[in-house]
Amino acid sequence: MDLTRRVAEAADLVTVALDELLPRADGPEARLTEAMRYAALGPGKRLRTFFALETGRMFDLDEGYVLRAACGLECVHAYSLIHDDLPCMDDDDIRRGRPTVHRAYDEMTAVLAGDALQAAAFEIVTHPDTHPDGNVRAELAHRLALAAGARGMVGGQMIDMLGIREDLGGVARMQRLKTGALIACAFELPLVIARAQDAERSALMAFAHDIGLAYQIVDDLLDAEGEAEAVGKAVGKDAAAGKTNFVTLLGADAARERLGLLKTQTKSHLDPFGAQAEFLRASVDFVLERRQ
Amino acid sequence: MDLTRRVAEAADLVTVALDELLPRADGPEARLTEAMRYAALGPGKRLRTFFALETGRMFDLDEGYVLRAACGLECVHAYSLIHDDLPCMDDDDIRRGRPTVHRAYDEMTAVLAGDALQAAAFEIVTHPDTHPDGNVRAELAHRLALAAGARGMVGGQMIDMLGIREDLGGVARMQRLKTGALIACAFELPLVIARAQDAERSALMAFAHDIGLAYQIVDDLLDAEGEAEAVGKAVGKDAAAGKTNFVTLLGADAARERLGLLKTQTKSHLDPFGAQAEFLRASVDFVLERRQ
Repeated sequence: MDLTRRVAEAADLVTVALDELLPRADGPEARLTEAMRYAALGPGKRLRTFFALETGRMFDLDEGYVLRAACGLECVHAYSLIHDDLPCMDDDDIRRGRPTVHRAYDEMTAVLAGDALQAAAFEIVTHPDTHPDGNVRAELAHRLALAAGARGMVGGQMIDMLGIREDLGGVARMQRLKTGALIACAFELPLVIARAQDAERSALMAFAHDIGLAYQIVDDLLDAEGEAEAVGKAVGKDAAAGKTNFVTLLGADAARERLGLLKTQTKSHLDPFGAQAEFLRASVDFVLERRQ
Repeated sequence: MDLTRRVAEAADLVTVALDELLPRADGPEARLTEAMRYAALGPGKRLRTFFALETGRMFDLDEGYVLRAACGLECVHAYSLIHDDLPCMDDDDIRRGRPTVHRAYDEMTAVLAGDALQAAAFEIVTHPDTHPDGNVRAELAHRLALAAGARGMVGGQMIDMLGIREDLGGVARMQRLKTGALIACAFELPLVIARAQDAERSALMAFAHDIGLAYQIVDDLLDAEGEAEAVGKAVGKDAAAGKTNFVTLLGADAARERLGLLKTQTKSHLDPFGAQAEFLRASVDFVLERRQ
């Protein structure tokens, strides 16, 4: 099986699972559950789920457990995109080629759908079906909360919105919190289920760190050079907003050069896992060559 | 000790605990953590914490465990108030006599502070210090997520915002979700820690249901007849927005009559607990006679 098919398969698996787990639209609050489903079940690369499932395979974990943990992760990711797109944040009309939630519904529904998706994430992860051991369930939820909160994703979003990032160090810290924390969580959750050794954990955390960084540099290149239609969202936003990012600070050529170095380094973290990390290793090229 | 002092003591305990648990303002995201603390540590009756601590006392629970669970509950409550006050929701400028978070800071900070407080709730509840047994921690988080989500608080907020409540049944369902679910959770969390019997659970759930309803009828009376300054927030909002509530549908006199009946019924649910429920029983009068 090739990587593209493997990634698509992960996306299908998590979308079907989320379709089962998310509340169905009925009752007077149907508009809320519809908006949650619109955001969480729409098109998406589902890279975090792919990372989680591949990590689960390396440790021979029950795929059902890892998939439910990934559902929690995707709910947090989906909620964060809804809120990021709000008029008081990035004010985006298009996401993945479709109207954003506050455009398809309205602002109030978008705020509430995001809020309810965050709650759904923790509801799913702490449900007994996610793992028979309560200590594992509680730790999954704890890691997810840390990655999602003020010291993780939301903190990074705040730094991004305030535009505080004068140098590469500032941009890197913002990225590590805003997108890096949730990407790292895609590896952390299966590591919790696997009760993995420190060495395995460190290797995968280093991989998560580097692939998260590479993902962001590609994002900044797409923002600088991509076409909105192909990318599926508005481009040129950072430059227009006077915000720095890896490309505005380094220039596109130096950013590409850095990506080249990062490619080798990222893959090297997987050496301890040998052939078992085949698809994670291949995903580095996938992330670096993505066009949307 | 009288009830007023007992309620004030619960409020102090949870405020001190939250002050310890919430992230301190530092780094470029300081604005976020400041806004979280402004919302979560400001004045408030902390009735949910009082309910949780009293329930914990009836079951002789370790107060530290119950207090941490109550901190999670208060984080969810605080986040919900921040988002309810947003311009795209109730558009309120004043809450508990102070500027609302989006007025004291800005809209973007208010959305993010609410988001981060929700994550903080689950971070706190699932932390090993909350309870040594992972099954208990996971169930605490699960109950909190259910109460907070689309089938609980956020679902009720959506119904409220859409104004779908043509009759008393609709108003009652909205209340049960929007405010009732989190009030019930104040009893559910200590019941989880106590591994309580079904009979005890049912009695306290019935109490929670009725006191939640009574709380809302008083709220609607204050909205209809109170003075903004005394109540600490804008009044007359439902009538101005053409929304129905218990008072617009029943009239103030019939609403007061219903409260009188509810008072006896609410207290009767505590009969099985005898003298141990002394302060919970007294809190019924406290809730019914509140002026803000």
